[in-house]
Amino acid sequence: MAEQKGLKNRGHSRADVDERRTAAEEFTGAKLETIAAYGFEPESASKNIENMIGTVQIPLGYGGPVKVHGENADGEFLIPLATTEGALVASISRGMSVINAGGGARAAVYEDYMTRAPVLRVDGIEHGRKVVEWIDANMDRIHGAVAETTSHGRLHRIDVYPNGRSLYLRCLYETGDAMGMNMATIATEAICRLLERETGAVMISVSGNMCSDKKPAAINMINGRGKTVVAEARIPKDIVESKLHTTSAAVVETNYRKNLVGSSMAGTFGANAHAANMVAAFYIATGQDPAQVVGGSMSITTCEDIDGDLYICVRMPAVEVGTVGGGTRLPCQREALSMIGCLGDGKAKKLAELVAVTVLAGELSTLAAQAAGQLGSAHAALGR
Amino acid sequence: MAEQKGLKNRGHSRADVDERRTAAEEFTGAKLETIAAYGFEPESASKNIENMIGTVQIPLGYGGPVKVHGENADGEFLIPLATTEGALVASISRGMSVINAGGGARAAVYEDYMTRAPVLRVDGIEHGRKVVEWIDANMDRIHGAVAETTSHGRLHRIDVYPNGRSLYLRCLYETGDAMGMNMATIATEAICRLLERETGAVMISVSGNMCSDKKPAAINMINGRGKTVVAEARIPKDIVESKLHTTSAAVVETNYRKNLVGSSMAGTFGANAHAANMVAAFYIATGQDPAQVVGGSMSITTCEDIDGDLYICVRMPAVEVGTVGGGTRLPCQREALSMIGCLGDGKAKKLAELVAVTVLAGELSTLAAQAAGQLGSAHAALGR
Amino acid sequence: MAEQKGLKNRGHSRADVDERRTAAEEFTGAKLETIAAYGFEPESASKNIENMIGTVQIPLGYGGPVKVHGENADGEFLIPLATTEGALVASISRGMSVINAGGGARAAVYEDYMTRAPVLRVDGIEHGRKVVEWIDANMDRIHGAVAETTSHGRLHRIDVYPNGRSLYLRCLYETGDAMGMNMATIATEAICRLLERETGAVMISVSGNMCSDKKPAAINMINGRGKTVVAEARIPKDIVESKLHTTSAAVVETNYRKNLVGSSMAGTFGANAHAANMVAAFYIATGQDPAQVVGGSMSITTCEDIDGDLYICVRMPAVEVGTVGGGTRLPCQREALSMIGCLGDGKAKKLAELVAVTVLAGELSTLAAQAAGQLGSAHAALGR
Amino acid sequence: MAEQKGLKNRGHSRADVDERRTAAEEFTGAKLETIAAYGFEPESASKNIENMIGTVQIPLGYGGPVKVHGENADGEFLIPLATTEGALVASISRGMSVINAGGGARAAVYEDYMTRAPVLRVDGIEHGRKVVEWIDANMDRIHGAVAETTSHGRLHRIDVYPNGRSLYLRCLYETGDAMGMNMATIATEAICRLLERETGAVMISVSGNMCSDKKPAAINMINGRGKTVVAEARIPKDIVESKLHTTSAAVVETNYRKNLVGSSMAGTFGANAHAANMVAAFYIATGQDPAQVVGGSMSITTCEDIDGDLYICVRMPAVEVGTVGGGTRLPCQREALSMIGCLGDGKAKKLAELVAVTVLAGELSTLAAQAAGQLGSAHAALGR
Repeated sequence: MAEQKGLKNRGHSRADVDERRTAAEEFTGAKLETIAAYGFEPESASKNIENMIGTVQIPLGYGGPVKVHGENADGEFLIPLATTEGALVASISRGMSVINAGGGARAAVYEDYMTRAPVLRVDGIEHGRKVVEWIDANMDRIHGAVAETTSHGRLHRIDVYPNGRSLYLRCLYETGDAMGMNMATIATEAICRLLERETGAVMISVSGNMCSDKKPAAINMINGRGKTVVAEARIPKDIVESKLHTTSAAVVETNYRKNLVGSSMAGTFGANAHAANMVAAFYIATGQDPAQVVGGSMSITTCEDIDGDLYICVRMPAVEVGTVGGGTRLPCQREALSMIGCLGDGKAKKLAELVAVTVLAGELSTLAAQAAGQLGSAHAALGR
Repeated sequence: MAEQKGLKNRGHSRADVDERRTAAEEFTGAKLETIAAYGFEPESASKNIENMIGTVQIPLGYGGPVKVHGENADGEFLIPLATTEGALVASISRGMSVINAGGGARAAVYEDYMTRAPVLRVDGIEHGRKVVEWIDANMDRIHGAVAETTSHGRLHRIDVYPNGRSLYLRCLYETGDAMGMNMATIATEAICRLLERETGAVMISVSGNMCSDKKPAAINMINGRGKTVVAEARIPKDIVESKLHTTSAAVVETNYRKNLVGSSMAGTFGANAHAANMVAAFYIATGQDPAQVVGGSMSITTCEDIDGDLYICVRMPAVEVGTVGGGTRLPCQREALSMIGCLGDGKAKKLAELVAVTVLAGELSTLAAQAAGQLGSAHAALGR
Repeated sequence: MAEQKGLKNRGHSRADVDERRTAAEEFTGAKLETIAAYGFEPESASKNIENMIGTVQIPLGYGGPVKVHGENADGEFLIPLATTEGALVASISRGMSVINAGGGARAAVYEDYMTRAPVLRVDGIEHGRKVVEWIDANMDRIHGAVAETTSHGRLHRIDVYPNGRSLYLRCLYETGDAMGMNMATIATEAICRLLERETGAVMISVSGNMCSDKKPAAINMINGRGKTVVAEARIPKDIVESKLHTTSAAVVETNYRKNLVGSSMAGTFGANAHAANMVAAFYIATGQDPAQVVGGSMSITTCEDIDGDLYICVRMPAVEVGTVGGGTRLPCQREALSMIGCLGDGKAKKLAELVAVTVLAGELSTLAAQAAGQLGSAHAALGR
Repeated sequence: MAEQKGLKNRGHSRADVDERRTAAEEFTGAKLETIAAYGFEPESASKNIENMIGTVQIPLGYGGPVKVHGENADGEFLIPLATTEGALVASISRGMSVINAGGGARAAVYEDYMTRAPVLRVDGIEHGRKVVEWIDANMDRIHGAVAETTSHGRLHRIDVYPNGRSLYLRCLYETGDAMGMNMATIATEAICRLLERETGAVMISVSGNMCSDKKPAAINMINGRGKTVVAEARIPKDIVESKLHTTSAAVVETNYRKNLVGSSMAGTFGANAHAANMVAAFYIATGQDPAQVVGGSMSITTCEDIDGDLYICVRMPAVEVGTVGGGTRLPCQREALSMIGCLGDGKAKKLAELVAVTVLAGELSTLAAQAAGQLGSAHAALGR
């Protein structure tokens, strides 16, 4: 059939895309006109997708400008945000405006390692012990194996988790400005092949799920994956009252009952109002992997009342981002990165701090709105 | 300043979008040409974003066709997938091809409730008890309050979690074909206002984080949120060998060491290879909320060797999707929905089953690829 | 060999115990004199242990008296506590003394169901659906099957968790004053045998680990197991200062940074200072199952500063206790139960409230001690 | 009142114990005769309890003998077990008998560090950064501060978790044969006092709950606390069939559906059948802290079918035990320790391996019993 032929086209040219889309229209009976209205040459996406038939357009807005005094990001930034959830961008912008009124946000990146954790099959405890001893004794050879696969990445450490006939190795890499998962995967596979040759262990999977990529795993929340980032701001008492129409005490109470106690009772990794919203909008705009929103969702938001001022902080243990490779190669995404001065080398930590500041702004706005509503209801309740 | 004026434009017309984008270019120094090349009238996105300056284009491909015999989805489907991760679409398609060779996937939707869980402040145990008793005695009034806010939604049940001066109520709603969070939020606020008037409890937040929206929360994995969906397939022994180049036993072992044991050791909610990848690509293509990838990431994948055949299954406890409202209103996304016959009313469960089948295909392909690699290394190891 | 003969003695008389102990001494070379000094007839422990050679003596003290105004426990109680951790009893007693000065503790029991969750193997989604439908349509027969196994227990509800070829059923039972696990297990096995006959499902385990007994499982923290209990107290400002040598604000801060934020960052089910200590000491003293300390360890402690007074509350979602059966049959344990008027029928909820009040006292004392130390260091820090 | 006087007696002599018990009898109306029949001088428990009125006697039996070829425990052992749960000792013994028939169990201890994790208040990100830098630059002074508090313990490492105005430090110590919590607490307090003086940080709690002691915390399951121990055994096919009346395949299936999949669906840290039972019985018998059963409950049990043989393994990431100090000072407990040659110095790792072997035996016996029942029902189901 005609459409079958089109559906099996594996080319990357505009003509190939068009043929496939036509075939898809025939197969499904759907009209794909807006999908067809893509704004760049499909060859430029050849490393990003197969079976391309066009694009999905996600509305792009901006939050801010926001003032940031980070260890890596410093200045005023207009943050690109791609979302389909009404009110999100407005809410983030409101938070940023309040942050600015308080002098801006501070931010810092702590740990910064991409991880890959293969699982190998060994014969049991004794064999596993020997493999671990071999690793300890041959780190130079392991570094050599890694070096053959990458010039940008560097193995930082291997954490070892023996479990009888399964041996898990969590390999931590410095990956520069790349998010680094491909680099880490290829390097880890090289390590495993070396171990197979030298120890008789058998690699069952280059990812034994202790990495852990795109899953809500405590190991990432605790030990970090990608960048561990913290952002904070202090909002003066009068700004809280005049711009947020609430009090620091009310925001602190909302954060306590909702984010801290409620999250604990729900069995949550992290404790935040809606960090994933900000992370998703930021990641999609800037060509990050949207499935890694999962890592960002494990953030913890804390609020304190300091002499009437509102202190707010987010800790994000798993910001898995990059400024080179992956979706950052695509035209719209490059433009979005250039909006925040994060295109290319030496920018990944800056980017990570801007992610955290954006989450901070969104958390602040939402918590304050709820606190303002609570004051309203408290008044209503008192007045009944 | 000129750009400041432009940045504060709040309009939704093409001219407004252009003015803001020009201001953004001036503010940031970035050229935003591809972002400007959006393919629909911005007014149609007025409920989806603020400060719009254009769109981000995500490459769209398709997986399949895949045969599905679901309780709600039945037929052959070409699945729209938006991603920037190379090889993902090809891998999913490979999985679908194998599923087809085995006769197709089966799927079913079980629980289907959207949740909102407010937290109220009460005076303590005694007051909390009275509020709970009032709720039990006045469910008709509560249903009435809900009915005033929505004609599409229906309150199913309220789960009660008292904790001293905090009272958490998890409200479960039937929300038809909408994902339903807005509906649930508005209805829950009405319930809270009623409780405030009648019991003196004070709503601190309409979301007390036991909902739990867009967070990795055990409560969703266990009790479900949105749709709980299961999909399965059985791949004949000869197909496993000829098309996947491995054996069912090897796939089962990979799933055991990686997804089951590895995920457990990493402290993971769910146990899968990369469910979030499929969920993200599907959600972005079809106008779902990409932050709700978090819910999808808590899926569990199981594999069994049945007389040499490979049985594979995914259980997804939190598929939070809809076919009306939100991002499904946008042009590209509507076209993608129409590709799978999921546009509009009566289609949300069908959509959810297709999500699960897509995850199934991606899990199958990845696990099999790793198992095939493992066989390779086993041979290499044996041969040394 | 002589000792081998003695080691294989399976009798329950004092002579049997002595013969075994002598054999054990010969086998191990150890002198077991204090173990031999047991104070009751070993026949009375015949349902509690095999291979008995004597007893281990755990020091028993008391906390209190403590004033309790619970829904089930009302009065002044001297709480029996068995521990080997120095300072624990003293600390709990201090907490109780402060609680008394504030007028006593309040407490309530909410949900009260013992659970057993079998896993059955089914053929797949379609078969699983039929089994679930059979259950829904035949609850009367299921109740009948349960009734044949117990006159004290009653099936409350069955929660259903389908997962392809595995079907999990969480059966919730009212078990009166028994902790109820044996009752629930026997009844559940009867349900499974009925299902096997009628539906072709195969019981793989009467416990499919969604029960979940003696494991740190979110399902118990969220949905409860055994009794869900809450206890609270309000300590007047002047008592906090004069007896605890700190302020309510300092205790609230300690609870915030330690129990709420720290527990979240550590990926903890529950949020408390040392609930397991109080639970263990109480359970061992009163013949509860010490392995069920795990359930008690998932408690959450909250503190609030109300006009300078200290409000403190513990929520315990999984207090799995009874006043009949198990270790409550033993002489020392019966005496301990009689100290708190909890021997026999109609007392299990009272017992559960006393557990929670004891945890409350221990939490209060420890948090306050740390807060007092913090004030000390703050002063020291200021003075440097 | 007379009893009030007696209740406030704080002495440790037999006369003091008797006076308090008499007062407790008067206060409660209970007769405490068996509690009074304690078999050792109460002064010897003066560091273990306050308000002592006697003892609670827990029946003591033994499991085994069991053959162990551990890295630290080697030989045949009779394991002391204190429990009130009928059938537990018999089940463990059955498991040990089967392990012996397969040649015995192997075991190893990996990581071995006791942890204490204080939380300090800092001014924010900038101050926190300085404190962390001070720590990095002054590890010699920190080691010196530790050395002033202990001659047995040694600081191994400090893991740092900054979170805005809260700074968490997880201090890992080598503690020799002591379980080590007191040692770690005192040393950590010294570190904090040093930090307070030098950096202006304020210790809010010496335990910021990232330790985490006696709570179900992922951090312990992942990074370990106390000893990380693994034990394994291989049971020949014919032994599985003749002594366990099942097959390796059936045990593997039970472990898969119950321990792996069921535990995952329940949101469990660890995956086992009833590890806490064995841990509790072992800990109570040998004077370990029974609240630390929580750590032991996070074990993971895996089973594999190797050519018909049954391979079984337990991984225990948090075995917090010692052979000196705490409850190991008491007479019965010392006798129990001497039964396994674990009294005193140089024995803690040996003890930990015996804990793991005991858990292994209990897991094996229970899983096999369930698998045998499953076979039975499969036959019944087939025969219907």
